[in-house]
Parts: sequence; structure tokens; C-alpha cells
Amino acid sequence: MLRVEDLDTPAVIIFLDRLETNIERVQRLIARQGIGNRPHIKTHKIPAIGRMQIEAGAVGLTCQKLGELEVFIDANVCDDYLLSYNILGARKTDRLMQLASRVKRLAVVADNDVVLRGLSEAGLRHSRDIPLLIECDTGFGRNGVQSPEAALDLARLALKLPRIVFEGLMVFPNSAPNTHEFFSRSLKLFREAGIALPILSGGGTPALNRLAEFSMMTEHRAGTYVYNDVMMVHSGVASWQDCALQVRATVVSRPTAGRAVLDCGSKVLTSDQYYVQHYGRLAHYPGAVISGLSEEHAIVDLTNAPKRPKVGEVVEVIPNHCCSVSNMTDEVHGVRNGVVELTWPVAARGKVR
Amino acid sequence: MLRVEDLDTPAVIIFLDRLETNIERVQRLIARQGIGNRPHIKTHKIPAIGRMQIEAGAVGLTCQKLGELEVFIDANVCDDYLLSYNILGARKTDRLMQLASRVKRLAVVADNDVVLRGLSEAGLRHSRDIPLLIECDTGFGRNGVQSPEAALDLARLALKLPRIVFEGLMVFPNSAPNTHEFFSRSLKLFREAGIALPILSGGGTPALNRLAEFSMMTEHRAGTYVYNDVMMVHSGVASWQDCALQVRATVVSRPTAGRAVLDCGSKVLTSDQYYVQHYGRLAHYPGAVISGLSEEHAIVDLTNAPKRPKVGEVVEVIPNHCCSVSNMTDEVHGVRNGVVELTWPVAARGKVR
Repeated sequence: MLRVEDLDTPAVIIFLDRLETNIERVQRLIARQGIGNRPHIKTHKIPAIGRMQIEAGAVGLTCQKLGELEVFIDANVCDDYLLSYNILGARKTDRLMQLASRVKRLAVVADNDVVLRGLSEAGLRHSRDIPLLIECDTGFGRNGVQSPEAALDLARLALKLPRIVFEGLMVFPNSAPNTHEFFSRSLKLFREAGIALPILSGGGTPALNRLAEFSMMTEHRAGTYVYNDVMMVHSGVASWQDCALQVRATVVSRPTAGRAVLDCGSKVLTSDQYYVQHYGRLAHYPGAVISGLSEEHAIVDLTNAPKRPKVGEVVEVIPNHCCSVSNMTDEVHGVRNGVVELTWPVAARGKVR
Repeated sequence: MLRVEDLDTPAVIIFLDRLETNIERVQRLIARQGIGNRPHIKTHKIPAIGRMQIEAGAVGLTCQKLGELEVFIDANVCDDYLLSYNILGARKTDRLMQLASRVKRLAVVADNDVVLRGLSEAGLRHSRDIPLLIECDTGFGRNGVQSPEAALDLARLALKLPRIVFEGLMVFPNSAPNTHEFFSRSLKLFREAGIALPILSGGGTPALNRLAEFSMMTEHRAGTYVYNDVMMVHSGVASWQDCALQVRATVVSRPTAGRAVLDCGSKVLTSDQYYVQHYGRLAHYPGAVISGLSEEHAIVDLTNAPKRPKVGEVVEVIPNHCCSVSNMTDEVHGVRNGVVELTWPVAARGKVR
């Protein structure tokens, strides 16, 4: 029997009780809205966890890359996927069509006419209809059409193009400033134009507390909630006890009274900061924060920590952004009551194409 | 014949001419100081490139993790290594001793007595002497003893402990504020104490322009110089034409006149910023900078770019920090005159233990 203390550091561990609770709690939360739960696999990248989400009641899964989709379809996790990314070029659209032939439904998104026309041509090449959502930018400043009018224009093109089956709109994240207004106006515009919007797909873990505000949505895509992290606690949607992914690391140096150095650097924890001014917290040392990272070193600022770890001690770090941790590690260890129950390879790690 | 245009994106490419020039130029620069060149493999993590560095005249290589060392020793790259990290715990020190038995010399570092005693015990268990440097913190604020006096104290312990062969001091990076003073005072202190310092090991690519200032050093460890990146150009030690690693990415969206989105996010480019306020530059679009990253999207700010790329176009990105790019990609493609000459697996990727 392998105990968690037997793992050499750095090691990425998953508290299985917390993982299961997170999956069930969010499934209930989304189901209570009467909408579909379509989790984003980017956080875990592990088919077994995708299967847990489906078994809990998810209507399907969201992937962002063809390579992720290939891993999940190979593992027979489910038969209904959304690929929430602009897919461009014949090489990629051919892969998309091959994947579509292996499941009941594979929808994809577009936010411009170049992508849309490429998808239509691929549908023609492969004699296959392509369910399509239009991605909308409601203030997040990433991909997406910029207005309900632009969404309508692109939808009209989608309706004209062969093999494209226009199904609705998608946004990430709901919590962007103009989501409610954008989607309300779109509903009105599309109704006036006589174009149905069977699917309105919202997203983001921080939006889980505010689903009722977006009652027009028909499904929700959240990813980070399976593990949670400093960013999610900061956003108010999770507590420290909901953080299922942690990094076990060894204190390799205590150069000064106020500084500890851990053997997990940016190669384990990532430099992602988002809303916080540090790079992770020590679970059992209140006040201890990771103030700096290099590739193999985490610098812990102990100035405000009354209790301080010694050289050789193993500590547990709650990372800022668990999705990036998953992307860098080859495996995670599932732990319950101090016992390592299983080790999952992160099968869809590093799938960037 | 595979041309660079045939690579699907995102793809990490290495301009082989630039790589070779970088290796030769820095070898000459360090040799001109009359000191040993001991490149740090963390930047490339590829045995074939380590071999190029050795063939150019490097005295040995530097690794930071046992897992990296295992990959390089398995590949027979050279027989003289420095492992520049505090190694703690019997599991790791046993691996260290097994690796040491396979090469002519494997030196290691320590900055505290716990690490030092653990190494001595491992030496006793395996009946093997361990060449040791003491790591000094000259103002960088990471690992290292805090003063020449502390270095001397630890050296005295090293000299007393069985199986430890004290060889000298090491620092990263030379460019930290107090390196010159710290090392000058250490030389004096150790001389007065009658303790020889055969090895003084400096490090860092930005210090390559200032090697003459640190004439007490006997060897230099630089890593990033093989590829270079925005950070190195910013530090004045490389030009854009020295940047051997680039990321080919497709423009997947042009949501607004001033914004492009590329299919390489933090999973390819890393969130590392260091001295710059962006996440990378577009090689052939002056003024275009990556202003934001999420996992699969790079947001390009085109506000100050007179020329702007279209949807579907492939662009080349110079990353902020090439070492982190290496750590996330499974392979890189070596390119010369537009032809993909070879594909190297990044064999020591993700070796965090």
C-alpha cells in the first residue's frame, strides 16, 4: 500500500473525496437551472475523470483541441462533444471530420467567415453535416464576434453554406461584462430574423454562483471546478477545502529566516497569476505565500507566517491555476485517507494541435 | 522533403544555423576568458544539442534535476556533470550515487547542513566520494548561503564529513548585485583559513557580456544562449537574429482591427514575463506584441503595428522565455533554409524529480 508520504517530490496529488464532491455539487447546481452541464476537460485532461463527469449527469464534454478530442474519443468517454475553438486548414478540418464520424455529435465553433467557409468545405469533402455555434466576445477580449448584429450576419452565412448546421451561440466566460445584454439582444434580433437559437452555451467556473442571472443559456461549460485553485477561491466560487489538486514539495533550502525554497518551480506550478499577486499558497502554513518562481525553485515568503517549515520537510502547495499544472505533469496521484489509490497518466497533456 | 510551411501549427522550430552560431560564439567568448564552459541543459533538454556543446569545447554540462541527468547519461552525452541543486532524501541521493557510478565526475551543490549530511551518508552507503560546491546567494534571493562567512562555515563542515570532497563555490547568476564582492571576500577568507577553492562557478546568459568583471571564476554555466528569447534581447546579450527558437502559429481570429488571436497560448508560450510587459513578439510584424495569454489563445495587440496579419496566416513568435517553451513541447523541428532537417524529441522535458 502506497501512502502519500511515500511519493517522491514534487508530486501532483488529487484528493479523490474532494474531486467527487466537486463533480457532484456542480452537476446538481447546473441541473437545478434546468440546463445541460458540458464540462471542459482542459482542467484534468484525464479520460477517467471525464467519465466521472458523464456518469454524474453531464450531457457531453468540451474540448479545445483536436488532440484532446482524439484522446477522449479513443478512450470512449462519451459520444457528444463541443470543440470550442476555431479550426482552420484542411489538415485540421479533415481530422475534425474523422473524429465526427466516431461519435453521435461533435459540434464546433466559428467567429469569422474564413473558419466557417473552411468548415463547410470540409463538410462537403466528407459528406458530413457540422453542428456549429458562433462564438461571441461579450467583453472578455479574446475570440468572438463583437456584436449581436455581427453574430446575426455570421449566422446568415452559416445558414447559406452547405453542410453547416447552425445551432446557436457560445460565450466564454459568462462573467465578462456584457454577456447578459449581448445575449438578450441577440435573442431579440434572431427572433425578429426568424432564426432559431436552440443552443446558447455559457462558460466558466466563476459563473457557477450566478447561473440564475443567465437564464437564457441552455448549457454551461465549466472546467476548473473539478480541482479548484487559488484563483477560484479568490473568485468566491470555492473554499480551500474544495481544492482537490495540490503539489507536494520538499523544502530544499531555508536561506534566511523569512525565506524557504521548494523543489517545485514554474515547471510544476506555472507563472500564471491572474487575480493574485503570488504563485500559490502553502496549505498548512497560514501566511506563507510563494512570492517568486524560477524553473525549479519556488520562493516562499514566510514574513507573515508564524509557523515555518524546516529543510527536508514536505509541504502541500495549492497552485494558482490548476489547469496549467495538469498540462505540465505526466501523471497525477489520486489520494484518499492518506493512501495513494491510483495514478492517472494525464493522457491529453500537451495536446496543442 | 518537409518544408517549414508543411508543419501544422502551433509548432516549435529551431533555426539550426542560429543554434550552431550561438553555440560557437559563446564557446569562444568563455574560452577567451581562459575558463571552462559548462552549459546548462535546461534550455534545450535535448541530448543531441548537449553533444553539440561538448563537441564545440564545453568541459561538461550542468543539469538541475536527477531526471535530466538520467536522460543525458543514458544518451552518453559526456562524462562530467554538475547537478546544481540541493538533493535531499535517501531516494534521491541513492539515484545520485547510481548516476555518479556511470560517469567520470558528477559534482553536486549544497547550501545547508541538512543537505550536506545527507550527501555524506549517501557517499558512505555507496562507498563513493562526492565532489561538492557550496551555493552562494549574492543577491538573487533564491538558494544559497548568505555570506562568505557562512560559506566558510559550511565548507569546514564539508571538509569534516566523510565522502564529501569540497571543491569550491557556485553562484547564479553572476549578474546578481553582490557577486563580485561576495566572491572577492570569500577568496580572501578561504585563503586565510587555508582552504583551497579550485572551482568558482558562475552562471547566467546575461553575464556573458561581463565575464571579464568576474575574473576569479573558473567556469561559467549559461543555458538560454543556445536559443535566446525576448528576455535575452532585452538584457542586451543577444539580437533578434540570434533567436534560434520560434513558435509558428496560425491567426485563428481577428475580432477587431487592433486584435489578432493565435493558436498558441500559455500551453506553448508560458506566462513567464520577467523584464518585459508582454508575452512574446511577432518576428515579421514590427510593433505587434502578445498582450495576453490564455491556455490556447495568444492575444496580439496590433495597435502599434502598421502591417497586420490575416485570419489563416501563419506567423512566427519569439517567446519571452524559451526554456519554458522547451519544457512544454514534446518535440522541436530543426529548420535550415526553409527545410525541416530533423525533429528532436525534447527527451528531458518535464523531468521535475
